[in-house]
Amino acid sequence: MTSPMFTLGELAERLGATLRGAADRSISGLASLEEAGPQQLSFLANPKYRKFLSETRAGALLLTPDDAESYGGDALILADPYLAYARLSHLFDPKPKASPGIHPTAVIAGDAVVDDRASIGAYSVIESGVRIEAGVVVGAHCFIGARSRIGADGWLAPRVTLYHDVRIGKRVVIQSGAVIGGEGFGFAKEKGVWIKIAQNGGVLIGDDVEIGANTTIDRGALADTRIGNGVKLDNQIMIAHNVQIGDHTAMAGCCGISGSTQIGQRCMIAGGVGMVGHIEVCDDVFVTGMTMVTRSISQPGAYSSGTAMQPAAEWKKSVARIRQLDDLARRLQQMEKRLATVTSGGDGSSEA
Amino acid sequence: MTSPMFTLGELAERLGATLRGAADRSISGLASLEEAGPQQLSFLANPKYRKFLSETRAGALLLTPDDAESYGGDALILADPYLAYARLSHLFDPKPKASPGIHPTAVIAGDAVVDDRASIGAYSVIESGVRIEAGVVVGAHCFIGARSRIGADGWLAPRVTLYHDVRIGKRVVIQSGAVIGGEGFGFAKEKGVWIKIAQNGGVLIGDDVEIGANTTIDRGALADTRIGNGVKLDNQIMIAHNVQIGDHTAMAGCCGISGSTQIGQRCMIAGGVGMVGHIEVCDDVFVTGMTMVTRSISQPGAYSSGTAMQPAAEWKKSVARIRQLDDLARRLQQMEKRLATVTSGGDGSSEA
Amino acid sequence: MTSPMFTLGELAERLGATLRGAADRSISGLASLEEAGPQQLSFLANPKYRKFLSETRAGALLLTPDDAESYGGDALILADPYLAYARLSHLFDPKPKASPGIHPTAVIAGDAVVDDRASIGAYSVIESGVRIEAGVVVGAHCFIGARSRIGADGWLAPRVTLYHDVRIGKRVVIQSGAVIGGEGFGFAKEKGVWIKIAQNGGVLIGDDVEIGANTTIDRGALADTRIGNGVKLDNQIMIAHNVQIGDHTAMAGCCGISGSTQIGQRCMIAGGVGMVGHIEVCDDVFVTGMTMVTRSISQPGAYSSGTAMQPAAEWKKSVARIRQLDDLARRLQQMEKRLATVTSGGDGSSEA
Repeated sequence: MTSPMFTLGELAERLGATLRGAADRSISGLASLEEAGPQQLSFLANPKYRKFLSETRAGALLLTPDDAESYGGDALILADPYLAYARLSHLFDPKPKASPGIHPTAVIAGDAVVDDRASIGAYSVIESGVRIEAGVVVGAHCFIGARSRIGADGWLAPRVTLYHDVRIGKRVVIQSGAVIGGEGFGFAKEKGVWIKIAQNGGVLIGDDVEIGANTTIDRGALADTRIGNGVKLDNQIMIAHNVQIGDHTAMAGCCGISGSTQIGQRCMIAGGVGMVGHIEVCDDVFVTGMTMVTRSISQPGAYSSGTAMQPAAEWKKSVARIRQLDDLARRLQQMEKRLATVTSGGDGSSEA
Repeated sequence: MTSPMFTLGELAERLGATLRGAADRSISGLASLEEAGPQQLSFLANPKYRKFLSETRAGALLLTPDDAESYGGDALILADPYLAYARLSHLFDPKPKASPGIHPTAVIAGDAVVDDRASIGAYSVIESGVRIEAGVVVGAHCFIGARSRIGADGWLAPRVTLYHDVRIGKRVVIQSGAVIGGEGFGFAKEKGVWIKIAQNGGVLIGDDVEIGANTTIDRGALADTRIGNGVKLDNQIMIAHNVQIGDHTAMAGCCGISGSTQIGQRCMIAGGVGMVGHIEVCDDVFVTGMTMVTRSISQPGAYSSGTAMQPAAEWKKSVARIRQLDDLARRLQQMEKRLATVTSGGDGSSEA
Repeated sequence: MTSPMFTLGELAERLGATLRGAADRSISGLASLEEAGPQQLSFLANPKYRKFLSETRAGALLLTPDDAESYGGDALILADPYLAYARLSHLFDPKPKASPGIHPTAVIAGDAVVDDRASIGAYSVIESGVRIEAGVVVGAHCFIGARSRIGADGWLAPRVTLYHDVRIGKRVVIQSGAVIGGEGFGFAKEKGVWIKIAQNGGVLIGDDVEIGANTTIDRGALADTRIGNGVKLDNQIMIAHNVQIGDHTAMAGCCGISGSTQIGQRCMIAGGVGMVGHIEVCDDVFVTGMTMVTRSISQPGAYSSGTAMQPAAEWKKSVARIRQLDDLARRLQQMEKRLATVTSGGDGSSEA
């Protein structure tokens, strides 16, 4: 693979940035301040890395006007260097580009509609009634179930499973191993035995959604499971049947959201969070890592559960004390009463 | 896909329900009270939805005799509407039905035995000595390792991996991405280096088991990992080597069960629960979400760990206090002693 | 499958063990003390199983010199029976051995280099620029992305995904469903909308690494995600972009490690542990199950968070009390003050 190559001037133009330095400087990639070499562009977004400004060997930097004053080298100056880095990152992505067309080994149902500008990978299987729009790339070993639809310009990494009746918007990215539309965990009990409930709903996914590796999103039991526009789901997340997630909510890895729970817009759910079923979380909620959300949240803000990490020996003491807490609280209350008696009673007895 | 169509009379007969209303009413599907239309059947199982009875546009309802009295429309009346819904749900499942037969792209070892009434999907790979019984559906991209067996009427969604020597009972459902029989995490240490222990056992799975998407069940180290009859495992569960799970136990998503742990019958393990290895959990135990089970449980009942969710600012205070708990408890004890001294000493001094 | 067969003498020689008993005794497998029969070898490693020594029907035992004194039957005597068991376990592994060669259904790019002594499974897809060394086994349905490399004698179970630019050392084992090199969770925010950051780094994995079923290791954003030599990762672990894990660290199932976190050498991370991003954990740290690691650890030792499991009724009280903890602590402090006043004031008033 030969690296792509841009001049600093080209990059300034793309970003609408103020260029300081050599417009014809060649840039072949991006790197951190510490690791960048003379042909690489770097950026300062986190103030804690400001100390590296004086030492960086980067060919040029993405900088705010303020930071640019304390740096002497070539720079692209703009308001949000991190966002600029995000934009430019795609120029240097080494991910192979798929060409339009259908790999000869793909098994495609006769009535599936695949746009000529889509790319279908080796050994993929596409079932009856599927519709795949222009610009979609379906990786090797993908399975697209009956009547599912993938909107324009989506990317399915190799080995993604969509069950039947999964409708996906435009520009959706799904990483390898994700399973969309699996049968949710629905059972009725009859004399101690679980009777399966068929999962007859589908999954509806908006535009610009990202779904991480080995994440699972179950189909609805009656109606659809729904993922809003711009939602970003990290790896190994479990979304149960009939969950609804609002637009632009982001969720980090290993979260588990139980059935029929509704999460609002622009929420940020950190890694390992669990939510019970049938609750509602309003817009603009931030949940910290590994929190167990056991009830609805109706006020925006940050929420947490759990205890802080301690050295194990200290932690054992804390844990033992937590078990005694109810007892401790009762003893405290009794003491308060006794102390009140002593104070007043003491006064009384001294007066008696 | 054209929807299946039944008359209300047919459904009453299937269920053995008392029919009230038009026996010839057409029913093409199931929906919630809120969303159902005139051709759909709905049900009331959760009392909190009783308020929707007066507004529902459903063609008919599954109702208990009591609830039927407060509803004027067509109804199928029976003891357990939720169970009835579970039963009927399969009539309206839009999941494509596989036809018996072997897809021409399947790679099947010469000595594997596949019943004529089984269905083997595209690009599946079936190794030596496998036996697949009548009515089994193996989805596309499945891998069935050497000598594994799948009992009658099972369903493997696309892309399920069974390693070698996995024996599965009748009517078992395995969702996409599940891995059964992977090599457990067994290592001996030699001078700071981990030496792998070959995992020579298999996996034994009973009848009527359900295994969720991306769930993993490791093979045993010496003997088999064992999953009992009627066990229901949700998505993204991790069952380590030599775990045993008793009949009719249900486990929600994202649980992790460590090696050689034994779980009894009819347990209900909520989402995100972790269990350490080599413990025993008796029958009829309920473990709440995200609990860490660190010791054996010998009494039926409900068990929990963790702390309640709080707004993050309050939570930080709680967390800081938990770290101080041992100190707080000691101070409480000292105060009790001092208070006892004060009380008796105060009396004494007042008498002196 | 016919079992392999060894004489006790052959096994003694392999292990350098002292043989006591019949050198020509046939051994066809390994089993626990309780389950072993006359043709099976067993071992005593955990003192709690010593009670089974008198009853075992095993043909012979792996024993320390001390334990051998209290056992009358045939034995292989050596310092570390568990390590000896690990060594011998591979002799009896029923896992089918793959033969070198490329399955005719494999799709391999013209410029990929596959050693003649490697084995490539059915329906695997190997992209441009890949290099696969001697003795590697690539299972069915694997996908090896562009320019990735697999060192000698590795084993990829069926259905493993390597994205592009993943470099793997020698003797690496990857279980089914693992995804290496997925795109990390990197987004910049622009007016409330998440903008994706291309993930341009790769993944670098050392020698003798084991990666469990459905574990995901994301590629780096700029530089590589790095997994050291001898690292053992269990199932369903999530390693985010730019994480670094030191040599011989072991991590049990369901852990989640956030972006750019660095873990030292010889650490042991129990199941379900979560770590926040951008922290450093030093060498020789042990983290107990389901701990949330929220800050860097600079001292070797054991660390924990969470609370102990309780019966749910007691737990509810503890949880309620934890919410009151800040209040309890304040009341305790007030009482201490009042008690001090009472004690001194009481003395004063009695003197007055």
